[in-house]
Amino acid sequence: MAYQSELNTSRRYLMGPGPSDVHPRVLKAMATPLIGHLDPQFVDIMDDIKQMVQLTFQTNNHLAFVVSAPGSAGMETCLVNLLEPGDEALICIHGVFGGRMADIAERCGARVTRVEAPWGEPIDAQQVKAALEHCRPKVLAIVHAETSTGVLQPLEEIGRLAHEAGALFLVDAVTSYCGTAVKVDEWGIDAIYSGAQKCLSAPPGLSPVSFSDKAVEALERRNTKVQSWFLDLSLVRSYWAGAKRTYHHTAPVSAMFALREAYRLVLEEGLENRFARHRRNHELLKRELEALGVEFIVHPDYRLPMLNAVRIPDGVDDAVVRRRLLDEYNIEIGGGLGQFAGKAWRIGLMGESSTPNHVNMLVSALKAIL
Amino acid sequence: MAYQSELNTSRRYLMGPGPSDVHPRVLKAMATPLIGHLDPQFVDIMDDIKQMVQLTFQTNNHLAFVVSAPGSAGMETCLVNLLEPGDEALICIHGVFGGRMADIAERCGARVTRVEAPWGEPIDAQQVKAALEHCRPKVLAIVHAETSTGVLQPLEEIGRLAHEAGALFLVDAVTSYCGTAVKVDEWGIDAIYSGAQKCLSAPPGLSPVSFSDKAVEALERRNTKVQSWFLDLSLVRSYWAGAKRTYHHTAPVSAMFALREAYRLVLEEGLENRFARHRRNHELLKRELEALGVEFIVHPDYRLPMLNAVRIPDGVDDAVVRRRLLDEYNIEIGGGLGQFAGKAWRIGLMGESSTPNHVNMLVSALKAIL
Repeated sequence: MAYQSELNTSRRYLMGPGPSDVHPRVLKAMATPLIGHLDPQFVDIMDDIKQMVQLTFQTNNHLAFVVSAPGSAGMETCLVNLLEPGDEALICIHGVFGGRMADIAERCGARVTRVEAPWGEPIDAQQVKAALEHCRPKVLAIVHAETSTGVLQPLEEIGRLAHEAGALFLVDAVTSYCGTAVKVDEWGIDAIYSGAQKCLSAPPGLSPVSFSDKAVEALERRNTKVQSWFLDLSLVRSYWAGAKRTYHHTAPVSAMFALREAYRLVLEEGLENRFARHRRNHELLKRELEALGVEFIVHPDYRLPMLNAVRIPDGVDDAVVRRRLLDEYNIEIGGGLGQFAGKAWRIGLMGESSTPNHVNMLVSALKAIL
Repeated sequence: MAYQSELNTSRRYLMGPGPSDVHPRVLKAMATPLIGHLDPQFVDIMDDIKQMVQLTFQTNNHLAFVVSAPGSAGMETCLVNLLEPGDEALICIHGVFGGRMADIAERCGARVTRVEAPWGEPIDAQQVKAALEHCRPKVLAIVHAETSTGVLQPLEEIGRLAHEAGALFLVDAVTSYCGTAVKVDEWGIDAIYSGAQKCLSAPPGLSPVSFSDKAVEALERRNTKVQSWFLDLSLVRSYWAGAKRTYHHTAPVSAMFALREAYRLVLEEGLENRFARHRRNHELLKRELEALGVEFIVHPDYRLPMLNAVRIPDGVDDAVVRRRLLDEYNIEIGGGLGQFAGKAWRIGLMGESSTPNHVNMLVSALKAIL
């Protein structure tokens, strides 16, 4: 039986939509023998992490913490805490993850208005403006970096419209966070979530989240209990930031050790340097792929630097190429999701996977295979 | 600023209510460079883990998997998938965690009947029998090992009553799992959840879960969507066990590496040997503590071997003793929770922390301090 053998995985180069490669310092920190989740030393670690969540989200929000579960649980945390049955929500959908937000909002009992853009294009602020003439949403939600399409969504104008309409502005920054600017305070973002395993380059399983004071007020004015006990911020808050830490659940101690080290690497590099590196390696990939005749799906004005959606060339077998990349070169790239299944590759250059070496390895391997 | 320093934790001996000490092989497996969560090698690892979940729950259930979040999310997974608004639930409460189940069941819109026992005592099957004369629950839920009180709850008679009443039998095995017998099939358990960080001795953050075919049928007969998208088993199932693995969320790859190795250690030792070791070290602790005049709270017939609830001796300052154990001896024990705050210590002898050395270190330190 296979479980009787020692773990024996290949050394992969992770260039899909996440997880990305993880720095050895992060792996080493994660392997530190555990301490208790209420140990004063762990409370200090939670404080360190809170501070680094604030720095990387570029926010002074008091409520900044990490959900003890992957990014999709971060998404659900924001929606279940802000929405009550009967509330209105305006959800912008230009890929899988906007659709997921609408699904969750409906599970919260919200009446959802959808604003949609074709896959591979961003939402136009004018669409949002028009939709706001017919609804009064409590929450206006949008994905900053659509991992399913490779689109970088401009946020400032839509955020302004949300505030003018009296709505809370909720942003999915799972893929953009720590790879391109995410300015929570400057852009008026009221609630935001991300994931650990993209440009932050920590192992998957944690979701940094922050709420503005206005979002916290909305939480405090709720008439009903949050439908999820595990994600109820009125409870999670006292665990993360109470004067006396109140036991809620057992935090994933080892994953938090890893996250702290991943954040330290981000801040040592500096956010602006990190963003520039992501742009630089994206430009290199673009030049190389275009020389190979591989086309990008998204217009240059809206391309994500860390998640490159390209058209699978005519006559090329998607599954065969990805399998050969994995088996012969240990390189993982992502297939298409949803509408783009079989039509697109998603090439991630995220965090530790955003290096010229990664680009060169992939391009050389593709040249040999195609 | 503190986050600028390298992670620098003390080497603790974890003898509280969890996490427990983790074997070096588990830490080493966790530090393995990541692979993608849809990599064929990772799919094999999920299959290995599924098989080991079945072996340790002593079940042939087809639906056996791991929730990508801590034990309390495992609890919520079971309740949100089995309960719909208007359903009846009978919840047995003899400590904090039974109360938490009732809270979550109410958040699902269920009408909850509570059967309660005083803290430190198990639920009597006769109480359940009497309660079943006045309700027709869809789910009857109970905690096997109440971590807040140290009580081992007999399950077989209550499981039989649940089935006679046509209810699904839901069991919390967070603290008992892998430390004492949990016979899912033999005891007729329809839904069960546990945690990684107790007697399984993996890092916290994952929750093994299993559903019987009858529970899966109940899931398939639902009239409403599960209120949590993240915990919706109709989606999670296809990720874990579909013919073609369907992307749901990004699994916590490193934590799963660690979990696989922790399971391998459990199965190499053998379940019965492991249970005997937990009993043996409990007996040693009992003899040593009684010689010190420290009394157990729970009647010997119902004592948990892995979580020893003892009365704090008169005149002893709870906080001072626990702080000195931590600062001078690097030993963590648990304080009391809920009604037992300030009155009880909870001494964990779980998994890798269940050794005679742990008992001897703690007893010697207590002798010096008291």
